[in-house]
Amino acid sequence: MELLPAFTTVVLAVALAFMNAASVQAGKVLVFPVDGSHWLNMNLLVEGLHTRGHEVTVVRTSTSWYIKEQSPHYNSITIPMSKAMNMESQDFFVDLLGRMLVLQREKDSMISWVSFYREMLTLLYSLHHQACQVAVKIFENKALMQSLRDAQYDVVLMDPGLPIGVLVAHELKLPTVFNVRWITSGEGHFLVAPSPASYVPVCGCAVTDNMAFMQRVKNMLFFLWNTAVDTLVVCPHYNRLVDKYLEPGTNFYQLLQGAHIWLMRVDFVFEFPRPTMPNIVYIGGFQCKPSKPLPADLEDFVQSSGEHGVILMSLGSLVKGLPIEITNCIASAFAQLPQKVIWRHAGETPSTLGNNTMLVKWIPQNDLLGHPKVRAFVSHGGTNGIYEAIYHGVPIVGVPLLFDQFDNILRMEVRGAAKVVDVTKLTSQNFVQVLQEVLHNTSYRDNMKRMSDLHRDRPMHPLDTALFWTEFVMRNKGAAHLRTESYKLPWYSYHSLDVVCLLLAVLSLLATGTVMLIYCLCFKLCRRKDKQE
Amino acid sequence: MELLPAFTTVVLAVALAFMNAASVQAGKVLVFPVDGSHWLNMNLLVEGLHTRGHEVTVVRTSTSWYIKEQSPHYNSITIPMSKAMNMESQDFFVDLLGRMLVLQREKDSMISWVSFYREMLTLLYSLHHQACQVAVKIFENKALMQSLRDAQYDVVLMDPGLPIGVLVAHELKLPTVFNVRWITSGEGHFLVAPSPASYVPVCGCAVTDNMAFMQRVKNMLFFLWNTAVDTLVVCPHYNRLVDKYLEPGTNFYQLLQGAHIWLMRVDFVFEFPRPTMPNIVYIGGFQCKPSKPLPADLEDFVQSSGEHGVILMSLGSLVKGLPIEITNCIASAFAQLPQKVIWRHAGETPSTLGNNTMLVKWIPQNDLLGHPKVRAFVSHGGTNGIYEAIYHGVPIVGVPLLFDQFDNILRMEVRGAAKVVDVTKLTSQNFVQVLQEVLHNTSYRDNMKRMSDLHRDRPMHPLDTALFWTEFVMRNKGAAHLRTESYKLPWYSYHSLDVVCLLLAVLSLLATGTVMLIYCLCFKLCRRKDKQE
Repeated sequence: MELLPAFTTVVLAVALAFMNAASVQAGKVLVFPVDGSHWLNMNLLVEGLHTRGHEVTVVRTSTSWYIKEQSPHYNSITIPMSKAMNMESQDFFVDLLGRMLVLQREKDSMISWVSFYREMLTLLYSLHHQACQVAVKIFENKALMQSLRDAQYDVVLMDPGLPIGVLVAHELKLPTVFNVRWITSGEGHFLVAPSPASYVPVCGCAVTDNMAFMQRVKNMLFFLWNTAVDTLVVCPHYNRLVDKYLEPGTNFYQLLQGAHIWLMRVDFVFEFPRPTMPNIVYIGGFQCKPSKPLPADLEDFVQSSGEHGVILMSLGSLVKGLPIEITNCIASAFAQLPQKVIWRHAGETPSTLGNNTMLVKWIPQNDLLGHPKVRAFVSHGGTNGIYEAIYHGVPIVGVPLLFDQFDNILRMEVRGAAKVVDVTKLTSQNFVQVLQEVLHNTSYRDNMKRMSDLHRDRPMHPLDTALFWTEFVMRNKGAAHLRTESYKLPWYSYHSLDVVCLLLAVLSLLATGTVMLIYCLCFKLCRRKDKQE
Repeated sequence: MELLPAFTTVVLAVALAFMNAASVQAGKVLVFPVDGSHWLNMNLLVEGLHTRGHEVTVVRTSTSWYIKEQSPHYNSITIPMSKAMNMESQDFFVDLLGRMLVLQREKDSMISWVSFYREMLTLLYSLHHQACQVAVKIFENKALMQSLRDAQYDVVLMDPGLPIGVLVAHELKLPTVFNVRWITSGEGHFLVAPSPASYVPVCGCAVTDNMAFMQRVKNMLFFLWNTAVDTLVVCPHYNRLVDKYLEPGTNFYQLLQGAHIWLMRVDFVFEFPRPTMPNIVYIGGFQCKPSKPLPADLEDFVQSSGEHGVILMSLGSLVKGLPIEITNCIASAFAQLPQKVIWRHAGETPSTLGNNTMLVKWIPQNDLLGHPKVRAFVSHGGTNGIYEAIYHGVPIVGVPLLFDQFDNILRMEVRGAAKVVDVTKLTSQNFVQVLQEVLHNTSYRDNMKRMSDLHRDRPMHPLDTALFWTEFVMRNKGAAHLRTESYKLPWYSYHSLDVVCLLLAVLSLLATGTVMLIYCLCFKLCRRKDKQE
């Protein structure tokens, strides 16, 4: 049996339908993005909405890193901020990464780690504090608020990583659409869908959906820890805003849980299957698209690799992130291979660099991954890169460095589509071994090819899906019929603990009553016998 | 803001894409349907798969009621059975309905009710017993089993209401696709998705997703009752089969839970929102389609209604089901209205029938519901009819009689699109009142119109969705990446009770240790003081 997925045809057809639909009267979208790599994703939706004729307004700060004030695709509202947080610069991450590597490599004391985590928590605190400062500036600016009201937007599209948009949307009485993978307490599903800790891995826990008992204990502890951090460090900021600017009785968590549509940047080819909700729409890989031809010089370099092909390496925005001793090991490993290597690299040039390796400041990553000569992708495990690798079916050598990257690479590893290298233990020898395994053991490419087939085999491209559901909310003034109201229940009612208590009480009463009845009957019977005797 | 849903265009485009895809090499589908109204649904999928070039084989019994041996759309395998169960005839339901109405009207004693329910349980027992007899005949027929193996099907498509297909599919090592709303223990979701009893109504409980405390207690009791009935009355049949014919260690529930795709005959315009799973695909309303012109005589009758319009009445397959005293009340109510009435009726002609009412044995229901002159639909609340009414935006007067019909009508009532009549209290007066309210209070039509808009506003027709995901399983030899393996966990592990116990034990130990330490220190301190003194 060989049935073609008909993917391309369906995509073309849906695109055609979308183009027809684009001729109808357009709407107005207010966007609250998160800066950095999150914006790259959000910008795709902004461009898509603009192309389909909608008027898009993006709220940014004067210290924005990636989000430009001027764009052909959107109008912007700029909130003046005196200084950017130090996190909004690349050097911050390089510094953070460097210190984490030192801690991991030198197996530093518990105290160093605790102090490091304390610093991370302070940073998290500051990050949300700064976001709330932006919200204060919006709410305090009566003219701005009035102009937002007057503009009569149809929907608020937002990234709930820094969820100030939900407060403004609530004030403007507008439905919200989330472009989401992360929320304040971790992965987005945890806030809105049942997430049994027995088989749904908590971010950072480095377990799969098939856990041994002690892994389930670890997963539960991570869940409790994340919840505690969110409750104690993050939420107080937003609760203060809610108390100050919104009507009494409003609950910050309920504002988040009340989003009409969650455009989840997840695909189950990548993520472990788990419970979901009717208003969660999966758009994982919505940035993926067919590759375009390479620039002539790059194409020449790629072609010069002959039958051996090319290895692509990129650590995302952390291009300067690795210490020179590690990049030297990597370069010397590459130099031992017959393949050509294209390495997106911005730091000091490694002394061990081979003739087969080309260092570049920027690469057309999607176009390279789609090139038939590319044999492997050395990646830090950012989701954008992983989805592009899945889309084009290129196996991965994972060098996870920070945040969710460890979990991301783990997901590819358990599916046999990636091999991971521990950067703290990286040597020229073990790196070359891993590269050779991924290059020569065909199972990696086969597994990636199968994932690619599954990922592409859907009736509609995920970007079109995202646009459809955003417009659905605009057309229908929300999607309340897809959203449960269960989040308004107290936790003990949600889990039916009150009902169980009542039923147990009734059962106990019945049992006690029965025992007492039997006891009384026996007692009377004995007495009557005694009397008779 | 007014954006057209672009529904028709998208449907056309997707249909075009599907037609293109149909030219690829076809597959083989083995179908285990359930007889009666379930077959009407399944037959749509069978026809769709046949149209797309697949070879479909339907397993039926020699006593089949609706499933014909000869069809242009499928081959059939007929399992010889000596006699049909009495349930497989319309008279059985008429008899059942009559007795239930007598019990309800006359508020008969508890003993009558218990005896009635006991009889229902016996019937349920016999129904599954008969299904298992069919399975035995299949497994015992070595030649048939070998021919099924030799045929090399790609997928088993089945209705898990009578789930013998999962046993055969397991034996043939084939992936299963369910066309499902009901399973042995009630609504399909309950077996595969988290279903908190705090806001997910259990079938038969007649509550919404917004329950007061005592309603939640009732819902929990219904859940426990359904589970008990399933465990004690239904499953033993299938467990015996599994023990006898499948390899040791196979678990019947796990066979059901292991279905690759659940084509769920549900749409959240109709059903309350609730947790779901990645491998559940919603195809509610997949039978709906635009109406065709009416036959000339019917069109003349409809047009003769003038500005008042037409009322449509149908109680589905229970056309002979109502006692004459009730049909007399209904007919006399209709006679008081200026509207024309088309009544699908097969029993004794009511003596009170008005000139405005036409009795017919069969109606082109979908074409009538789509006619602009139809003002209201008097329905028993079968899901097929309800989805057609939603699709065409016709408000409902509900006369629920049996099974899920009460819950179905309740869902329409809470959305303000239907008004329910208790058939045991039906009089000419209250029926005419209800009719007039639905006819003249525009909110019913408006709410139905809004539901219709929401239901139609999707990127792909649900029938195409169903075909796409069935073919997805055929192309990819399953959809295991969308299915959790959580059902293999013991229930206490699934709910993390073992982990919670461990954590509580550790906490208790720590607390006890701390208390004992403090106690020892105090004790030593006191002793030293005493000595010093």
